Amino acid sequence: MKIAISGKGGAGKTTFAANLARWLANKGVTVLAVDADPDASLGSILGIPEAELIKLKAIVDMKELIEERMGGSGAFYPLNPKVDDIFDDYSISVGKIRLFQMGNIKGGGTSCYCKENSFLHALVNSLILDKEDTVILDMGAGIEQLTRGTAQGVDALIIVTEPSKVSVKTTAIIKRLGFELGIPKVLVVGNKVRKNEDEGFLRNHFSSEELIDILPFSEELLDMSGNTGSQELPQGSLGIQLANIYQEIVRRVK
Amino acid sequence: MKIAISGKGGAGKTTFAANLARWLANKGVTVLAVDADPDASLGSILGIPEAELIKLKAIVDMKELIEERMGGSGAFYPLNPKVDDIFDDYSISVGKIRLFQMGNIKGGGTSCYCKENSFLHALVNSLILDKEDTVILDMGAGIEQLTRGTAQGVDALIIVTEPSKVSVKTTAIIKRLGFELGIPKVLVVGNKVRKNEDEGFLRNHFSSEELIDILPFSEELLDMSGNTGSQELPQGSLGIQLANIYQEIVRRVK
Repeated sequence: MKIAISGKGGAGKTTFAANLARWLANKGVTVLAVDADPDASLGSILGIPEAELIKLKAIVDMKELIEERMGGSGAFYPLNPKVDDIFDDYSISVGKIRLFQMGNIKGGGTSCYCKENSFLHALVNSLILDKEDTVILDMGAGIEQLTRGTAQGVDALIIVTEPSKVSVKTTAIIKRLGFELGIPKVLVVGNKVRKNEDEGFLRNHFSSEELIDILPFSEELLDMSGNTGSQELPQGSLGIQLANIYQEIVRRVK
Repeated sequence: MKIAISGKGGAGKTTFAANLARWLANKGVTVLAVDADPDASLGSILGIPEAELIKLKAIVDMKELIEERMGGSGAFYPLNPKVDDIFDDYSISVGKIRLFQMGNIKGGGTSCYCKENSFLHALVNSLILDKEDTVILDMGAGIEQLTRGTAQGVDALIIVTEPSKVSVKTTAIIKRLGFELGIPKVLVVGNKVRKNEDEGFLRNHFSSEELIDILPFSEELLDMSGNTGSQELPQGSLGIQLANIYQEIVRRVK
């Protein structure tokens, strides 16, 4: 199962992705969590110390190594992550979650991240997973990774949206791009809903089929997103709601 | 005066940029407001109807036209926007604010926005402005436009940050990239502060010289950012604080 998480900046993508990874890991699933945003924060939110994250090699640097080892053409990387030792050097594990970062920080004015996106696309498409393994791609804010096609080849694209005209407009564009990429399931999750009319606003913009659920504004999730809060899956009613959303995503993808 | 606004997704860049444009326009300054985010929202927040925004041509499409007209080498575009009619076709005016968009939405998997960023960089660097004219670049979320060098050549880079570890980390990276690009002034504005400790957190991370001011969390700004609220410069104490921040930015840049 390969799932990409996208949305406008600030909608709550990374926190949603981190909690999905935790929920799957708690079920015994091996999760390959890929931070596809050059402005990386998934590792921090998963609770990995900065000192370790700084040392983490970017997966784009695996390219030559893999091609050498596999005699690859550059178009396919037929790896099984479970058996391949290369992956160990390019990831940090937290329980059953294995974190990868697409690229490292470059210098000012030196380069785009096209090469990184292109390799990530090739890698995601050629990964051979065990039945229960899951890849989660936490995408950068906005639309460029969709116009680049980085997420092409995933089984589902989950778009996290706030109840605002601006966020909903971005979500509509990402949805269209997802369909253009041929992603089988494009689903929406509402987030940071504060008022009754916010919920109505979201229900007016998305069909009940595509809108999986709507999460309330939560100080707990806000603190988690800023890495000033908990590093555990939320408990209580919020935890139950998240679990139901994640269960529904898995059900739809299968 | 050329000012770029950057920061992590959701920090409040576009709302800050829109209000800066309004404040300058109220003072009689001509503002060229450039939405440099392919996931454009500056136009909406400035109050321009969707129907007009959809028809707006992207500035990247001016490239050939300008080169033809000016016999340009591709490296310099020595235009004076006040006298050049080409600009009229590629902008929408709201009073003294003239909005440009870097690029249009592309298809899924078709392309990156490297060409658009490269042209915008060339354009910003070669624009000859009248003394009081101001260019505001509303950058995309994250760091890639800095590693691409799109903002190189501006007089100031303003980084909007929330009081979270994640946002402050991104701000530190953008600051470094700004210095590497040789931008003369790199300044920080705190935003969405909810608790007393949030303010302390920001003051601990940035010097009093670089941190211009700290804005409280505001429902008014939140609604404006989602394009569900006012399209006017805020009044009252928030309006006064914003005006002081903008005044201070102008003072530092001059």
